[in-house]
Amino acid sequence: MKKKNGQHFSRLSLRRVAIDTYKENVAYLSRDCSVYRAEGFQALAKVEVVCNSRRIQAVLNVVDDDRIVGNCELGLSEQAFAQLGAEEGAEVRVAQAEPPASMDAVRRKISGERLVLKDYQNITLDIAQNRYSRMEMAAFLVSTGQNGLDRDEVLSLTRAMIETGVRLNWNEPLVADKHCIGGIPGNRTSMLIVPIVAAHGMLIPKTSSRAITSPAGTADTMEVLAHIALLPEALNKLVRLERGCLAWGGTTKLAPVDDVLISVERPLGIDSQGQMVASILSKKVAAGSTHLLLDIPVGPTAKVRRMRDAMALRKLFEFVGDRLNLRMEVMVTDGRQPVGRGIGPVLEARDVMLVLQNHPEAPLDLREKSLRMAGRIIEFDPDVRGGQGYAIARGILESGRALAKMNRIIQAQGAQEQTLAPGHLSYEVHAQRDGVVTSIDNYLLANAARLAGAPMAKGAGVDLFAKLGDTVQKGQPLYRVYAEFQSNFDFAREFTAAHNGYGIGDPSEMPASFTEFEP
Amino acid sequence: MKKKNGQHFSRLSLRRVAIDTYKENVAYLSRDCSVYRAEGFQALAKVEVVCNSRRIQAVLNVVDDDRIVGNCELGLSEQAFAQLGAEEGAEVRVAQAEPPASMDAVRRKISGERLVLKDYQNITLDIAQNRYSRMEMAAFLVSTGQNGLDRDEVLSLTRAMIETGVRLNWNEPLVADKHCIGGIPGNRTSMLIVPIVAAHGMLIPKTSSRAITSPAGTADTMEVLAHIALLPEALNKLVRLERGCLAWGGTTKLAPVDDVLISVERPLGIDSQGQMVASILSKKVAAGSTHLLLDIPVGPTAKVRRMRDAMALRKLFEFVGDRLNLRMEVMVTDGRQPVGRGIGPVLEARDVMLVLQNHPEAPLDLREKSLRMAGRIIEFDPDVRGGQGYAIARGILESGRALAKMNRIIQAQGAQEQTLAPGHLSYEVHAQRDGVVTSIDNYLLANAARLAGAPMAKGAGVDLFAKLGDTVQKGQPLYRVYAEFQSNFDFAREFTAAHNGYGIGDPSEMPASFTEFEP
Repeated sequence: MKKKNGQHFSRLSLRRVAIDTYKENVAYLSRDCSVYRAEGFQALAKVEVVCNSRRIQAVLNVVDDDRIVGNCELGLSEQAFAQLGAEEGAEVRVAQAEPPASMDAVRRKISGERLVLKDYQNITLDIAQNRYSRMEMAAFLVSTGQNGLDRDEVLSLTRAMIETGVRLNWNEPLVADKHCIGGIPGNRTSMLIVPIVAAHGMLIPKTSSRAITSPAGTADTMEVLAHIALLPEALNKLVRLERGCLAWGGTTKLAPVDDVLISVERPLGIDSQGQMVASILSKKVAAGSTHLLLDIPVGPTAKVRRMRDAMALRKLFEFVGDRLNLRMEVMVTDGRQPVGRGIGPVLEARDVMLVLQNHPEAPLDLREKSLRMAGRIIEFDPDVRGGQGYAIARGILESGRALAKMNRIIQAQGAQEQTLAPGHLSYEVHAQRDGVVTSIDNYLLANAARLAGAPMAKGAGVDLFAKLGDTVQKGQPLYRVYAEFQSNFDFAREFTAAHNGYGIGDPSEMPASFTEFEP
Repeated sequence: MKKKNGQHFSRLSLRRVAIDTYKENVAYLSRDCSVYRAEGFQALAKVEVVCNSRRIQAVLNVVDDDRIVGNCELGLSEQAFAQLGAEEGAEVRVAQAEPPASMDAVRRKISGERLVLKDYQNITLDIAQNRYSRMEMAAFLVSTGQNGLDRDEVLSLTRAMIETGVRLNWNEPLVADKHCIGGIPGNRTSMLIVPIVAAHGMLIPKTSSRAITSPAGTADTMEVLAHIALLPEALNKLVRLERGCLAWGGTTKLAPVDDVLISVERPLGIDSQGQMVASILSKKVAAGSTHLLLDIPVGPTAKVRRMRDAMALRKLFEFVGDRLNLRMEVMVTDGRQPVGRGIGPVLEARDVMLVLQNHPEAPLDLREKSLRMAGRIIEFDPDVRGGQGYAIARGILESGRALAKMNRIIQAQGAQEQTLAPGHLSYEVHAQRDGVVTSIDNYLLANAARLAGAPMAKGAGVDLFAKLGDTVQKGQPLYRVYAEFQSNFDFAREFTAAHNGYGIGDPSEMPASFTEFEP
C-alpha cells in the first residue's frame, strides 16, 4: 500500500485483456481480489491506474473468471492498456478515481451560470486526459448546448480546445482553408476547391472530419479515392510538395478534445451553434490556417433555415475568428436542396471526378459553387485583383490543371487499390404526380442515405435524377437508392415509402433563395 | 440470417461472461466472428440481442481472446445474461440496435421545446426496457434539469414513471407516508416516525432509497440495524403484521426508471426540482400511498435556501400530488444545520435508538422534529382531533411503545447479526476561537462525512459536539470524524483542515429561521 495525493493505492500485476472498448477505458478486477474488497470498489466506478509516472482513468468491471483476470491482477482493455504504455506483468497501482474537479463547473453551467476561460481550460484538460466518462461528456455537451453559450464563452471554449492539442505552424504568411457548417447532402466542394487553389500555388492543407450525422463527410468521400489517415510527418511533406491535401483530421492531434466530444455528440445526435463554432475554429487555428472561407447554406431544410439566423451565426464566427487572428470570409449559400447528384461516399466521389474531368454529365451546381468558393479563396492572394478569382479558378479547372493536381494528391496520399462501386442492391423512387419539383428535403434524403448504410458502407447512398425546378411526370424516377446489405436496403425502402422527400407542384410554390448566388 | 422488423439478425450461441458491468448491459463478440465483419459493427455500438421472444439491448465490446468468447458465440455480461433469461448455448440472434425512438423527444427538449405526456411515456418506456445508454440518460437528465420542466411536464413525467412499474394497492383507505427532500445531514426522522405512526395503528409502509449525494439515506442507516432488501411478498406480510416497515425501495420495482436515472444522477452530481418532484411522487403513488407528509428544510446551506423557493416547490408538489389523488401536507422546517448529532449510517442509527429509548443523551432536535411530523401524520386519521397528533405521538414515544414497535420491525425485517461500531480511525476538529456557533454548513459537513467513507463504510461519518447557539471556547472539540480506511481518513482530514464548516462569532450573526417551528 502506498499513498499519493491523499489517495490509497494498491499494487497489482498488469494484464492486457483483449477486449476492444473503443473510446472508453475499462479496467477488470477479480471479485476475489483483496483490493476489490478492501477498497469497496463497485462495478462502473471510475478508478485511477498508475504505472511508473503514467496515470489513466478507467471504468471498473468486476470479473468472476480467472481466465480473464486472476486474483492479483489488474486487467485493462486494449485502448486503456495502450494508453498506460506499460508491459504485461508490470506493477500497477489502483485507487478510486476522484471525480474530475472541473465537473463542478459543468454543474454550474447546468444551473445556468456563465463560465470563464479558466473553467473551459480545466474542462478540456480533464477531457484530454481521459478523466471524463462518456456520461460526464454528455452532461457537458447538453449543458452547453441548451442554454447556449454567450459569445465570450464560445471564444473561451475555442481557446481552451486549441490549447489541449498540437498547434501547427506552416511558416508561410497565407495558409488557406475552407469549411462548410454542413447539413447539405452532396456538398463536396472541398474536393474541388483544394486542387484548384493548390494548383494556383496557395497553401491549402485541408483536413476534414468524418460524417457526424450526415451520410458522408469529405474524409469519408476522399477515402473512396485515397488513404486519408496520414501521420503528421507524411502530411507535412505532402503539403510542402503539392501545396494541398485532403486528409482526415483525426490522426493529427489538433484540438483532440473536439474528436472526443464528437464521439459523444454523434450517437446522441445533438449539435449546438456555440459548440459548432468552437469545434470548427479550434481545428482551423490549431491546423495553422490564417485565412478561412466559411460556407453557411440556408434553406428550409438546411441547418440554418432563415437568413437572419445565418447572419447571427456569421457574426459569431467573425467575433471568435477575429480574436484568434483568423482572417475570415463567410459566404451564405443556397441550401434549399442537395448539391450535385450523389449522396454517399462513392456517389459523391463520382460527382467530384466528373467535375474535375470537365465531363458533360458533371453536376453543374457542384461545379459552379466550387468555382465561386475557390475564386474567393484565390482572392485572399494579395497579387490577385478583387473580382478576378472566379475566372482564375475556372481557368485552372477547364485547363485540366485541377484534375492533374487532384491525381497527384491522390497518389501522394496513397491511391485506393480499387475504385469502389455503388452498392449492388438498389431501387428507384418515382414521382407520384406530374409537376415541377418545388422542394427536396435535405434531412429526409440524408436520412434515407444513412439508412441505406452510408457512410460506413461506402457504396450506399442516394443518386438524384431531378432537382428543384425540374419538370417531372408521374412514374418518372426521382432518385435511386443503393445499399450493400439487405437489412439496410429494407430500412431505407421502408423509410422512403413513407417519406420520399420530394415536393412536386407549381413553380410558384418553390421557396425563394436570397443567398449570394444560385448555382 | 433472419429478418424481423426490418433488422438483419445473425444467429450465434449464447455464452455467459463472468464480468459484472452493473447497470450497463455489455455484449462480447469475437473480432473473427463473421457477424462482426458482415454487419460492420463497431465497439461501443448498441446491439439488440434476441432469444425466443425476449430482447435486450447491450453495448458491444469486441474481443480478441477465445477464452472469453469464441467465433460463433455471443457473450453477455452478468446482468445482461440475467435479463435475457436464457441458458448458455441457446441460439441467440443479434443485430444493430436502432437508436431509441424517444431520443427525438430528448433532442427536442434540448432545443427548448415542451414535451407532452406521450413523449415522457415513450422515454420512460425506452429507459425501462434498457434501450438508453448511460450517455443518453445523462442527456435526458441534463436537458430536463437545466431549462426546467414546467409543472404540466412534471406531472407528465411523474405519470409516465408510475406507469413503467408495479403499482401497489394496500386495499386500505389510508396509507400514510413521509418524505424529506434531503440535504440535511442526520435528518433520520423516518426511523422515528414509522414506529410511532405504526404503533398508533396507521399503515405506513415506508420504503426509502440509499443516499444519492448525502453521507447516509434512511435505507443506509436502517441497514445498520436490519436487513432492508426485502422481496415484495415478505414486505407485504410484514406490513400487514406490524403496520409499518423501513425497507429499501430498490427491490420493489416501483417506478424502476427512477432508480435507473438516479444511478446516472449520482455520479454526475446533478439534481433538479422537476426531477425531484417526479422522482418522489412517482415512488409514493406507485407504493400505494394515499397521504403524504413532505419535509422541506430551508436554510442557507440546505437544498432550498429561501422561503420563497420553498413556497414555489410546495406549490409544485401540491399541483402534481393533487392531480394524482395524493393527499399531501407540506412542512417547511428549519434546515440551518444538521439534525441530531451523528452524520453517517452507524452514528445516525445510534441517535435514532437513543431517542426511541428516551435516553437522557438523545438529541432533542431529532426527537422534537420527529414528534411534530409524526403528530401531523397521525392527524390524517379522521378519528384524531386537529391539534392532538403531537400529544399522541409523544405518548407513544414516552411509553416505550415506539421502541417496542421498532424492535418488532427490526426482527421482522431480519436483525443484523452484530451492531456496527463507528470507524476505528478518528480525529477531532477544534474551535479556532471563543464565541457562539453561528453557522454549521450542511454541505461541508456532509462532504466531510462522505470523504470519510460514508455511506459505503457504515461506521464512517461525523459526530457533532456543538450546535447552533452553543457557546464554545478556543480549542474545544466541535466534532469528531470517524473513518474505516486510512485513505478516507486522510481525505477527510485534509478537507476539514481547509473547511471545518463551523462559523463562530456573536449570536446576532446567526441567521433567523422563519419556519413552522425551531426544534
